[in-house]
Amino acid sequence: MIFPIFFTFFLLLSSSHASVQDFCVADYKAPDGPAGYSCKKPAKVTVNDFVYSGLGIAGNTTNIIKAAVTPAFAAQFPGVNGLGISLARLDLAPGGVIPFHTHPGASELLLVVQGTIIAGFVASDNTPYLKTLNKGDIMVFPQGLLHFQVNGGGTPALAFPSFSSPSPGLQILDFALFKNDLPTELIAQTTFLDASQIKKLKGALGGTN
Amino acid sequence: MIFPIFFTFFLLLSSSHASVQDFCVADYKAPDGPAGYSCKKPAKVTVNDFVYSGLGIAGNTTNIIKAAVTPAFAAQFPGVNGLGISLARLDLAPGGVIPFHTHPGASELLLVVQGTIIAGFVASDNTPYLKTLNKGDIMVFPQGLLHFQVNGGGTPALAFPSFSSPSPGLQILDFALFKNDLPTELIAQTTFLDASQIKKLKGALGGTN
Amino acid sequence: MIFPIFFTFFLLLSSSHASVQDFCVADYKAPDGPAGYSCKKPAKVTVNDFVYSGLGIAGNTTNIIKAAVTPAFAAQFPGVNGLGISLARLDLAPGGVIPFHTHPGASELLLVVQGTIIAGFVASDNTPYLKTLNKGDIMVFPQGLLHFQVNGGGTPALAFPSFSSPSPGLQILDFALFKNDLPTELIAQTTFLDASQIKKLKGALGGTN
Amino acid sequence: MIFPIFFTFFLLLSSSHASVQDFCVADYKAPDGPAGYSCKKPAKVTVNDFVYSGLGIAGNTTNIIKAAVTPAFAAQFPGVNGLGISLARLDLAPGGVIPFHTHPGASELLLVVQGTIIAGFVASDNTPYLKTLNKGDIMVFPQGLLHFQVNGGGTPALAFPSFSSPSPGLQILDFALFKNDLPTELIAQTTFLDASQIKKLKGALGGTN
Amino acid sequence: MIFPIFFTFFLLLSSSHASVQDFCVADYKAPDGPAGYSCKKPAKVTVNDFVYSGLGIAGNTTNIIKAAVTPAFAAQFPGVNGLGISLARLDLAPGGVIPFHTHPGASELLLVVQGTIIAGFVASDNTPYLKTLNKGDIMVFPQGLLHFQVNGGGTPALAFPSFSSPSPGLQILDFALFKNDLPTELIAQTTFLDASQIKKLKGALGGTN
Amino acid sequence: MIFPIFFTFFLLLSSSHASVQDFCVADYKAPDGPAGYSCKKPAKVTVNDFVYSGLGIAGNTTNIIKAAVTPAFAAQFPGVNGLGISLARLDLAPGGVIPFHTHPGASELLLVVQGTIIAGFVASDNTPYLKTLNKGDIMVFPQGLLHFQVNGGGTPALAFPSFSSPSPGLQILDFALFKNDLPTELIAQTTFLDASQIKKLKGALGGTN
Repeated sequence: MIFPIFFTFFLLLSSSHASVQDFCVADYKAPDGPAGYSCKKPAKVTVNDFVYSGLGIAGNTTNIIKAAVTPAFAAQFPGVNGLGISLARLDLAPGGVIPFHTHPGASELLLVVQGTIIAGFVASDNTPYLKTLNKGDIMVFPQGLLHFQVNGGGTPALAFPSFSSPSPGLQILDFALFKNDLPTELIAQTTFLDASQIKKLKGALGGTN
Repeated sequence: MIFPIFFTFFLLLSSSHASVQDFCVADYKAPDGPAGYSCKKPAKVTVNDFVYSGLGIAGNTTNIIKAAVTPAFAAQFPGVNGLGISLARLDLAPGGVIPFHTHPGASELLLVVQGTIIAGFVASDNTPYLKTLNKGDIMVFPQGLLHFQVNGGGTPALAFPSFSSPSPGLQILDFALFKNDLPTELIAQTTFLDASQIKKLKGALGGTN
Repeated sequence: MIFPIFFTFFLLLSSSHASVQDFCVADYKAPDGPAGYSCKKPAKVTVNDFVYSGLGIAGNTTNIIKAAVTPAFAAQFPGVNGLGISLARLDLAPGGVIPFHTHPGASELLLVVQGTIIAGFVASDNTPYLKTLNKGDIMVFPQGLLHFQVNGGGTPALAFPSFSSPSPGLQILDFALFKNDLPTELIAQTTFLDASQIKKLKGALGGTN
Repeated sequence: MIFPIFFTFFLLLSSSHASVQDFCVADYKAPDGPAGYSCKKPAKVTVNDFVYSGLGIAGNTTNIIKAAVTPAFAAQFPGVNGLGISLARLDLAPGGVIPFHTHPGASELLLVVQGTIIAGFVASDNTPYLKTLNKGDIMVFPQGLLHFQVNGGGTPALAFPSFSSPSPGLQILDFALFKNDLPTELIAQTTFLDASQIKKLKGALGGTN
Repeated sequence: MIFPIFFTFFLLLSSSHASVQDFCVADYKAPDGPAGYSCKKPAKVTVNDFVYSGLGIAGNTTNIIKAAVTPAFAAQFPGVNGLGISLARLDLAPGGVIPFHTHPGASELLLVVQGTIIAGFVASDNTPYLKTLNKGDIMVFPQGLLHFQVNGGGTPALAFPSFSSPSPGLQILDFALFKNDLPTELIAQTTFLDASQIKKLKGALGGTN
Repeated sequence: MIFPIFFTFFLLLSSSHASVQDFCVADYKAPDGPAGYSCKKPAKVTVNDFVYSGLGIAGNTTNIIKAAVTPAFAAQFPGVNGLGISLARLDLAPGGVIPFHTHPGASELLLVVQGTIIAGFVASDNTPYLKTLNKGDIMVFPQGLLHFQVNGGGTPALAFPSFSSPSPGLQILDFALFKNDLPTELIAQTTFLDASQIKKLKGALGGTN
């Protein structure tokens, strides 16, 4: 039995323009658009574009929040560009906290791999949804809602949040309010916080004004 | 020239199942799903489903924030269901403030119709984008990012925000943090705010714990 | 309490490729694609990219339709690129008319700010939906359907249509049929209009053939 | 080699809720929503839900436009529900015409199977794009734009338009304007057509007022 | 400072129809549609809808492939419905194999938590992309492409694939071909496999004909 | 009646940036992204970009499968870029077969124009859906599922599959497994096929290892 080269199809598909297919590995040097980064030329794509090893290394938690987040978003991991998914690593030392934050562009699905994590989100009607998560538990945080994670035990915790977008974004509440030059008075007016509280946190986080 | 009834097309389209077309006016009594409310039966749809008059009435601003927001989302205005857009009315008395908030499900495009409004949003990299908007100015707030609006003059201000979804959602920062039963200690841990500050705002907004 | 620079996250996010996030301000000089314009480099984005003042100026209605439409689409207002929304301004002098037209790429939500407007659309089953709109009323026109607006009073009317796309498109019926070189005979054959009627409107609108 | 029943996966997937998968055959008796019809219970789905024979029969072209369109949209063909595609059959006797129309919800890709068809569409900038299509030619009409098809030869023509939506919709210009009770004066005002022309076409198409 | 109940907004949002927001927890008893399951009534939603503990338990790998897959898709985990993401657990005993399969509705992002896994996918141009993954490595498999995972070491391996859809689907090649009543001759004709090979695998997997 | 140039709208729309509208004809020389190819400059677009004649020519079926597939995807037909649809031509000589394959990025709607075709797909639950299709019949194959087509009669068959994407992709099972350098042992392990069977097909299709 012999199979000669036979498909008109394949002759055509292997022609010059056959790029918008299967995947779109990010080319960081070309322009990006609302749907993501431009695609690397197919001939330059290798299996290493689809594999990322950066999450195998524990983040450094010797900091004030005793926590570290390591992302594998499209900006770090070119293979997920255009594929609607990404991942990160979350290390929480005992007492560690990921403070209230949102992902403007994705829902999050958190997987606890080690330790105990108290996690929660608040819905638009202000109802809080809180749960203590143990190894193997997963919890979903709907897109754009405020949520947090806290180490709930005396041992280090490790978790992997996956996201419904290759570029989920991240807005940490304290940083958005206090780690910039927003005038204290304006923050007070738009948060009802006391000026002294605002100035204290601006000082701690490096904000001005 | 005579046009008899002629299109097979129309005979078929006017048959029993021809409902998933053109629009999907919300039927609040049937189940809703991820894409929105179920559709009203075509025979029950009237022009009034596509028109909403609730935004013609000024909101009551005799309250602590001297402001009112009146929505015309899919939950109030059935005609926008499934159409990717909605609108609201924003009244700001002198000194009025819409405190920091997000819309988890939509970008916002604010149109100032009367008065002066100081508006701003903070990006994921903590950069604030602030502007004083006058009558006729428009400003866009990208989906999911924290933003606020403040009356910037001595006279009442009126604005109409439109949204890129019929159900944009709304999460007001102070309400999410303080207008529920989240434990003070947990809020302190996940926001870095002082317990006294938290208790003060819980008291003001009706929160407990 | 001291907060050193601590997040691995932020170190990474502030690295070179962190652009596909939060927003995508249009860069008119780079290629555009099916999802919109390419994104401006983050370092070049300012608050002015998110604010547009062109709708504050009344359009010139001293013309045959006594009306003017001023768009703030992605082509004019770079900040809305990729965000699923845009806006326009509609001025109608007494007797003013926006003739039958469609937006191929968006639903429209019209807000009447001043005066009275008679508006209507026709559904696929040929049912017309008409309404006289007063100040504060809003009406939604589902994507792609023929619709019109007419000043319904003796005073100028002002309205702001918002759209469910940054590039809604606009096809005005009379212009599509008569303001080009489509042969009269072909138009007659495909619209059932009399040749004399077609030639009259071609003459008025600058069409040929 | 023996393969026992082994996958936890399959045990779970064959459990009660495993319906949102692979396809969603339309259940015309349940509510529909913005994304389409509800899904038929998996146990009731047969191969016949995915096959449609209605396009094998020539439409009746003994009518004034000497043409017939037979749709296989989600409303007629339950298998395409939710799958982003549909098809129709177009019969054009000699002299046959499909007058100017739009599909509000889909782009169209026309395949000529027999005869010659003159087809065209008009873009938002009023540029017409016209072409004489022969057997085997295909032409794409972008979503929402006015287009038409005319038999360009002396023999019957047959074509099959496919659509980028299971419910593309159809708005025929003449029917939208003249086959209903829109007041003649209002049509004149919003189309610039003469009242006599309007009344003539209303008479021919069965419109009133 | 006193905050009375003040927002028109909230009065309206807390009214009867405010359900299409934030999330859409699956109601398995109501109809499902192309976008997913219907939403549970907001009043019945609890934190447990957003948390799933089924992935904490090792799957039973005492079977012929020495592997088990445990899904947390929308059909098992109601909280992910409509949120664009889901997760599964993959246990591979030494020598374990997840044979060639596809997910018709999602891209997959595999996280190796324990052991060594040899994984690979084949692109449309028939290029294989293979990699040996160690603990902490992640690999992305673009939507719809054939891929597999094999335990690459002498110890048990554990991995968690996340998916870009709450209902990614799963089609295992061998099961699709041999675990049903497709006639042997037809399979031979459409796969080029020998009839004896087909019959052998049908026998092993429980297929007939 | 005289119509001067009157629309502010048109003056603005005809300005420099008015490109993201109506359509996005592929520019094969500019970068492509997840949403498709970049758009050709509007001034360079002609009607020929929207018309494709390559499907009018019968594919060469003098090959081992006695079949040919000729695509009109975005890579061949620039006009469909970004429009959510494409088409192909399928020629099946007597005895011709399109072996089991998937389209990772689109659902397929097959139209039989000549002859008889036995077609089928297999769902995720391994249920096969088979049907003999005659001239005029259409059958839909949901996205990503394995399917095939076989000439069911003694005469040539001709069919036109349309797709719900301009770049549906194509993965032919035999080619993915045997027409590359995947090690025989690995294929055996991940497909349960005998090594001799694999080697035989690798030989026939030009695979190695």
